[in-house]
Amino acid sequence: MSLYTEFQGGSEVALSKIISHIENRREGYQEVLSRLYRTGGRMYRIGITGPPGAGKSSLVNRLAGLAAEAGHRVAVICVDPSSPFTGGALLGDRLRMQDIPLDKGVFIRSMGSRGSTGGLAAATSNVTVALDAFGFDTLFIETVGVGQMELDIIDACDTVVVALVPESGDAIQALKAGLMEIADIFAVNKADRAGSDQMVYDLQSAMEMKAVHSEWIVPIVATQATANVNLDELYRHLTAHKAYLEKTGLLAQKRAEQLKKKVERVLVKSIQRDIDRTLLNGAVLDDIVGRIMRGEDDPYSAGQALFRQYKFGS
Amino acid sequence: MSLYTEFQGGSEVALSKIISHIENRREGYQEVLSRLYRTGGRMYRIGITGPPGAGKSSLVNRLAGLAAEAGHRVAVICVDPSSPFTGGALLGDRLRMQDIPLDKGVFIRSMGSRGSTGGLAAATSNVTVALDAFGFDTLFIETVGVGQMELDIIDACDTVVVALVPESGDAIQALKAGLMEIADIFAVNKADRAGSDQMVYDLQSAMEMKAVHSEWIVPIVATQATANVNLDELYRHLTAHKAYLEKTGLLAQKRAEQLKKKVERVLVKSIQRDIDRTLLNGAVLDDIVGRIMRGEDDPYSAGQALFRQYKFGS
Repeated sequence: MSLYTEFQGGSEVALSKIISHIENRREGYQEVLSRLYRTGGRMYRIGITGPPGAGKSSLVNRLAGLAAEAGHRVAVICVDPSSPFTGGALLGDRLRMQDIPLDKGVFIRSMGSRGSTGGLAAATSNVTVALDAFGFDTLFIETVGVGQMELDIIDACDTVVVALVPESGDAIQALKAGLMEIADIFAVNKADRAGSDQMVYDLQSAMEMKAVHSEWIVPIVATQATANVNLDELYRHLTAHKAYLEKTGLLAQKRAEQLKKKVERVLVKSIQRDIDRTLLNGAVLDDIVGRIMRGEDDPYSAGQALFRQYKFGS
Repeated sequence: MSLYTEFQGGSEVALSKIISHIENRREGYQEVLSRLYRTGGRMYRIGITGPPGAGKSSLVNRLAGLAAEAGHRVAVICVDPSSPFTGGALLGDRLRMQDIPLDKGVFIRSMGSRGSTGGLAAATSNVTVALDAFGFDTLFIETVGVGQMELDIIDACDTVVVALVPESGDAIQALKAGLMEIADIFAVNKADRAGSDQMVYDLQSAMEMKAVHSEWIVPIVATQATANVNLDELYRHLTAHKAYLEKTGLLAQKRAEQLKKKVERVLVKSIQRDIDRTLLNGAVLDDIVGRIMRGEDDPYSAGQALFRQYKFGS
């Protein structure tokens, strides 16, 4: 039986193998993605982001459990912060996630940095295609931090939950980091801590000051994920946001925008691979760098000369 | 008098105008960069990174002052966290930096997110070319956070200072975020806080566990930037690291690697601009997205078809 037949038959082992194939961009992975893509299209994607220590893993844990109880087939991707030098994901988040009861059938996958800008966002987006084709209808993507890479990942989600903790100045940090713009729902987690009410208030004030371009009023929910307080309410807001996007046609619009970016990324990636193979072998670059270091060239002229060579063959 | 003549004459107004030209990628900016590149080459670049709240601005403030006192011509770039949606840098860090005494002649520039992955790292790298050509011999680049974008910026520096604060688990967070691999020097700032000794000890232990590939022993300096405690020592380690890189030939090696990446980036950027102009106009992408949404195509096949069209014209 082929791997793909096993995958279609619902084997999680086959799913994991196919994900690894895609994640490591092994030979032929784009053909695999093409094939998988056409059998998917039903999965709803929820992104959870926020600063380290906000309890994102616990929140995802609880929400994934609630979604599974509601009858959804649920997958979780944890995007781990990790070194671009070692390339590996660390175990912390993965281990924490394991207290999602296994009998709920939630599929969990950790992903680590691929070591190049945009690489992890693209790899994560590719892995979602496999999960979608496998039949999951609900995906949670947890990302740590608020850097550009995380924003690229979040950009590919349908609903975005921003998790914060009551700490002085955190509402302002959130504002600075652009979290106000991406949040569809705020979770003020660890709400038993001092300053929780104040933070909810600060966020409300900040959101009210924003020019409103949308009929969606961003809910701000005070939660305690580990003690399971107010998770039901948070989950209700998730389903309400999904219904809102569907009703208004915004979901289709969002998907179209995401697809444009995706097509462009595949194109650019194909060109980059072609360049690496045909134009940028070690000797050529060494030669160019030597010329630049001797003051005979500069990286801007050299890069543009390579472009002309690629485009016009001269 | 032309802008470039004023620039050569030492006008900071002309410098600022040229930086804006480069930063906003206005028409002809690559030619400007080519020209500037060939008159530079002497500037030493120090990156300072670490989690929010580590006191990076204060550290840069003090170190820039010390470098200026030692007779260097010093510039500072603050890379602000900001929204990819609003595109603007926020004022907080900029304002904080202003307590560098103006009579020390330190030039300060803030840069905000350009809204695309890799865009800010490339823009920052381009701006350093202008600062170098202007005659600054020492540059501090402050970046907030430890995302991929920050790592790309740090990658273009000669010496990297990682700033941390004594907080439980922060040494482990630093390890997880890959900061161990990029740090040439650690500053445990706000060292008057509880847990400072413990953190220095934790970092030392973690560094000792690392396989040593280098003769450079990463110093761990307990500092209090706002109270000016131990900044002299931190500065001495900076100059020692510079001397080490020069003596061993590692600086030239590092610069060659950075140049390779730079040439490749210019090439890819040129291709991307060409694609946007010739291939990816709105109607073409709308058409493709429509086909994908009707299930007649998928983003991977569509992207590769566009690649073949670009490369072979069919």
